[in-house]
Amino acid sequence: AGDAAAGKAKAAVCAACHGVNGVAMIPGYPNLKGQNEQYLVSALKAYKNKQRTGGMAAVMQPQASMLSDTDIANVAAYFAQMK
Amino acid sequence: AGDAAAGKAKAAVCAACHGVNGVAMIPGYPNLKGQNEQYLVSALKAYKNKQRTGGMAAVMQPQASMLSDTDIANVAAYFAQMK
Repeated sequence: AGDAAAGKAKAAVCAACHGVNGVAMIPGYPNLKGQNEQYLVSALKAYKNKQRTGGMAAVMQPQASMLSDTDIANVAAYFAQMK
Repeated sequence: AGDAAAGKAKAAVCAACHGVNGVAMIPGYPNLKGQNEQYLVSALKAYKNKQRTGGMAAVMQPQASMLSDTDIANVAAYFAQMK
């Protein structure tokens, strides 16, 4: 599993749309609080590998491509452990 | 917004992976309980339009393609209102 503490720093930019508490600011974006860690990794990698092109992929693809696999694991751990 | 009551019947098949209470049975699948309705509609349509090919898209594309836009709105309303 990822390192949630390291993920917190990396996730600062995510808060802009997904909320500092993991509850999305805008109804069209997903809440991330308490989401399954493995799913978050899979979703971020799908954006990174350009396997997701619908919805907000235009925003998420560049965001995900800036993250290393370690960053992805840490950010996923950070949101997954949010209560 | 969709009709959650109508969505409940349509969502029976979703429970197999996403759980009867919207908490995924398998860590690689997303929890849907309390997710944003508009996001769920956007994600289902992305699968239906084959704009998502990563992760479990092989399972989700056929599932979504069996749903009409009304079904999608209703299933999204059903999971969104789950507490």
